[in-house]
Amino acid sequence: MLKGVPSSMGDEYPLNMTTLLRHAAGTFPTSEIVHRRLDESWARTDYAGMLRRVSQLAHALDSLDITPGTTVGVLDWNHLRHLELYFGVPSVGAVMLQLNIRLAPTDLVYVVDHSEAQWIFVDESLLSVAESLADKVNVRGWVVMTDKPSSEISTSLENVYFYEDLLAGQSEEYDFQFIEETSAAYAGYTTGTTGRPKGVYYSHRSMYLHTLGLISALKIDYLDCVMPVTPMFHAVSWGFPQGAVGAGTKIVLPGRFSADNIGFVAEALVEENVTVANGAPALFAPMLEYLRQLPEAPDLSNTRLVSGSTEPPLSLMKGFSDLTGADVIHGYGASETSPLVSYNWRLKAELADLPEAEKWDLKRYQGLPILGTEIKVVGPENEELPHDGKSMGEVLIRGPWIARSYPKLDDNDERFHEGWWRSGDVGVITPEGYLKLTDRLKDVIKSGGEWISSIDMENAIMDHPKVLEAAVIGVPDEKYQERPVAFVVGRDGAEVTKEDVYEVLADRFAKWQLPDEVVVSQELPRTSVGKLEKKRLRAEWQSN
Amino acid sequence: MLKGVPSSMGDEYPLNMTTLLRHAAGTFPTSEIVHRRLDESWARTDYAGMLRRVSQLAHALDSLDITPGTTVGVLDWNHLRHLELYFGVPSVGAVMLQLNIRLAPTDLVYVVDHSEAQWIFVDESLLSVAESLADKVNVRGWVVMTDKPSSEISTSLENVYFYEDLLAGQSEEYDFQFIEETSAAYAGYTTGTTGRPKGVYYSHRSMYLHTLGLISALKIDYLDCVMPVTPMFHAVSWGFPQGAVGAGTKIVLPGRFSADNIGFVAEALVEENVTVANGAPALFAPMLEYLRQLPEAPDLSNTRLVSGSTEPPLSLMKGFSDLTGADVIHGYGASETSPLVSYNWRLKAELADLPEAEKWDLKRYQGLPILGTEIKVVGPENEELPHDGKSMGEVLIRGPWIARSYPKLDDNDERFHEGWWRSGDVGVITPEGYLKLTDRLKDVIKSGGEWISSIDMENAIMDHPKVLEAAVIGVPDEKYQERPVAFVVGRDGAEVTKEDVYEVLADRFAKWQLPDEVVVSQELPRTSVGKLEKKRLRAEWQSN
Repeated sequence: MLKGVPSSMGDEYPLNMTTLLRHAAGTFPTSEIVHRRLDESWARTDYAGMLRRVSQLAHALDSLDITPGTTVGVLDWNHLRHLELYFGVPSVGAVMLQLNIRLAPTDLVYVVDHSEAQWIFVDESLLSVAESLADKVNVRGWVVMTDKPSSEISTSLENVYFYEDLLAGQSEEYDFQFIEETSAAYAGYTTGTTGRPKGVYYSHRSMYLHTLGLISALKIDYLDCVMPVTPMFHAVSWGFPQGAVGAGTKIVLPGRFSADNIGFVAEALVEENVTVANGAPALFAPMLEYLRQLPEAPDLSNTRLVSGSTEPPLSLMKGFSDLTGADVIHGYGASETSPLVSYNWRLKAELADLPEAEKWDLKRYQGLPILGTEIKVVGPENEELPHDGKSMGEVLIRGPWIARSYPKLDDNDERFHEGWWRSGDVGVITPEGYLKLTDRLKDVIKSGGEWISSIDMENAIMDHPKVLEAAVIGVPDEKYQERPVAFVVGRDGAEVTKEDVYEVLADRFAKWQLPDEVVVSQELPRTSVGKLEKKRLRAEWQSN
Repeated sequence: MLKGVPSSMGDEYPLNMTTLLRHAAGTFPTSEIVHRRLDESWARTDYAGMLRRVSQLAHALDSLDITPGTTVGVLDWNHLRHLELYFGVPSVGAVMLQLNIRLAPTDLVYVVDHSEAQWIFVDESLLSVAESLADKVNVRGWVVMTDKPSSEISTSLENVYFYEDLLAGQSEEYDFQFIEETSAAYAGYTTGTTGRPKGVYYSHRSMYLHTLGLISALKIDYLDCVMPVTPMFHAVSWGFPQGAVGAGTKIVLPGRFSADNIGFVAEALVEENVTVANGAPALFAPMLEYLRQLPEAPDLSNTRLVSGSTEPPLSLMKGFSDLTGADVIHGYGASETSPLVSYNWRLKAELADLPEAEKWDLKRYQGLPILGTEIKVVGPENEELPHDGKSMGEVLIRGPWIARSYPKLDDNDERFHEGWWRSGDVGVITPEGYLKLTDRLKDVIKSGGEWISSIDMENAIMDHPKVLEAAVIGVPDEKYQERPVAFVVGRDGAEVTKEDVYEVLADRFAKWQLPDEVVVSQELPRTSVGKLEKKRLRAEWQSN
């Protein structure tokens, strides 16, 4: 690295999470924070109030001897106290560890152990999760978060404190210290389909820069209203709480909800004039259904819904646009990338003349890299492939908010290459600079030195009216290394033939790419969260 | 500073100016750069072309042995080569030194000496400035920038190279190295009314963060078109070239112009659909006049004109708004602050019900701090004053793009306090968080332990129909330390009396604040650039 003449600017002024909150409370003291409590009532505070509470929280953390170096686990929904912890824990130099309540119990125990968490803060509604961990982990104590008097809470946990009792009587002012910016502010563990969860430790610096990237990309300012719909125990809530506080927006916290009980979240979106929200298609889809049933379609023409985790279906994007004017923006990233890497919002001027259908198709792409992230697509020798929209390779990412290693793990060499993180995704970059994913690396079919996208082929097969579902896997082949095999489920029990499949693929795939076999199935194997399990398909094929 | 658990993110990935250009060329290769040449013709290139030229420039700098540690002075207007130098010089780890062509020759010599600049790049039209410096400075050589063949240029400079000759034949690819982010990328010298120019060395980090701040505050993206009207030899061009490149916008470079010859700049604003521009009121005012004379008023309703250096007159803000829909945004800062500290664009929601006149008045304030800058107003003991809109004190600023010292100068203690830069401005902060400047520290009248704003009083006096101009100074007083004295110039030779002045001040000032004396003058002393010279008024008062 080159080193030039020293500057005379405030280079030692660190990028800290605390700065975001101090800025919000100082410049936007009356911006509202609207939050839903466990008892389903709504309440309101503002940034001035939040800074007072976070100051009390910092004193409380001091009183528990939570200091730089301490890791604090959190089990909570999108509640106000969770937001306070997002700023309070890092403010004393400690690490806030996200505990994903959807993890298998053994994985949760592994995460607490591996991260050496010393305290766990738990919402009253998740006490049973905490209690199931209690005798398997080694923590100093538990802090229960509840709106009830602590005397009304009964729990088998030992060394229990109560959040509100800890805060009560603490001073509402705290002398926040600067924190070295490469110190971790947050930690989360990713859950792959194989292996143990992997730790990702987000620094104050990386989250601060991610916050600026998010605010710029979505043009968020103090006239906006941000609602974090994505659970706050997932991937730092995609940086939305930090983005909201940094920009001084009104915030709406929906508390506890599920995809089956999300009507009130959609209602709050409309009632509170939310202009920015995030979520997976699995959450946005039922919200759209709820809005469809309102007597009058709401005007959400200023609303940006950032959809991540999987590609948003066209029906979701068009549905929101037609009904409400809201813009569903495809965002791409992962826990290892803080997560925002690229986004797909306003169409580039040079593409303004595309036919409508192509514009919609383009909107499904992963989009343009955000300033600060570098994306490249590489071939088998890690050579960078051209931006031609055709050259398919693994997507590698680097930048100030992209992971550079997994702490305390020995498979780092497989997942990192010369400072770049290997996403495990396969994609292309178009001449206009758009990233488009075509597959997962483990699912792409490597046949005769070429790659065939299993996802592209599945989508094409599903265009056949007789097909309900399709899955394409690569199976070992002596001559070609791998060959594609398609599994299809017929719509309403229809019989799907190899000819049907070949017919619908003819225009879009070369002859050598067509699947050797078409297997008609009753259903496709899926994980507990509904993800297609190709691993099982491959195993079944092998054993037959 | 606290130090916590290490993170696992790319914290060592440095914030570099080169990243901005690589991002623009990679993601927005066809975004246009429209530029006016010295011969007044317009030409076009794009970011892909710019990266090729900057790569050639980097090779050329290598060939001149310009390396990390070298300082390169530039004498140029808002030309394309100037923009190339903005990225090319920092890209090899060297410092680009802005040479303000408006400086007195002795000051220019001082700046070149003090900065130890080793090379000076000079536009053909400024050769006479370079030649007048040549025998007084000690540089290794000069590089002349011209569109003509070098054989047509005659100059008395020795060790002369020609920019285009240096670039010709160089490879269009360059392996840009990462640069330690606290290395200086740019240097500029501030010109106060007293003392020698003071150096400000902007780091890659500080300018990168300023760029993100600018992009967020003005919501700039790749659909925008940015025109840097402020001379590119002033205060890093307010960071607008970096902001434009970072966001991948189209750029319009107006080349050489002056306030007297700015019609074509206004024309380009309209013709090229410029949506973001910067400038002093002295430049925007004649542009507005030009636009008024067009047969049809242009629609600039998506255009943000950032006005800095002095408070924009109400007539300018309203004029642009009424005629074109353009929003004149007051921005506050100084060379020491990169420069953007605060801005005044969209009104806070809580102020939406203010009467129209009060909204316009508020728009003249310096506005809300940008995320990343901290502003406080302090009293005589450096104690922070409340945000009550009344407590007047000196404005102190700190943050990652605010100066922390003046290199190689010994009056740092007077201008810095515990990491904060003393702006020398006097102001208040309103309960809504708006900064409003009321005076310069050296002009405020300290009377009986209280401060009286000379500017507020001048503005009030000038509301009297008989008054053309007014200046208020503090004169020494045994009992009260200082007392105000007003100097007034009558409109069309009108006689202005003390009673006239008292009458117009009665509502707005307390009795003890009224000026002890009112002196009627024929004219007020001004500097060569038209600035009121209160120093001379004070001296005249003392000598009488």
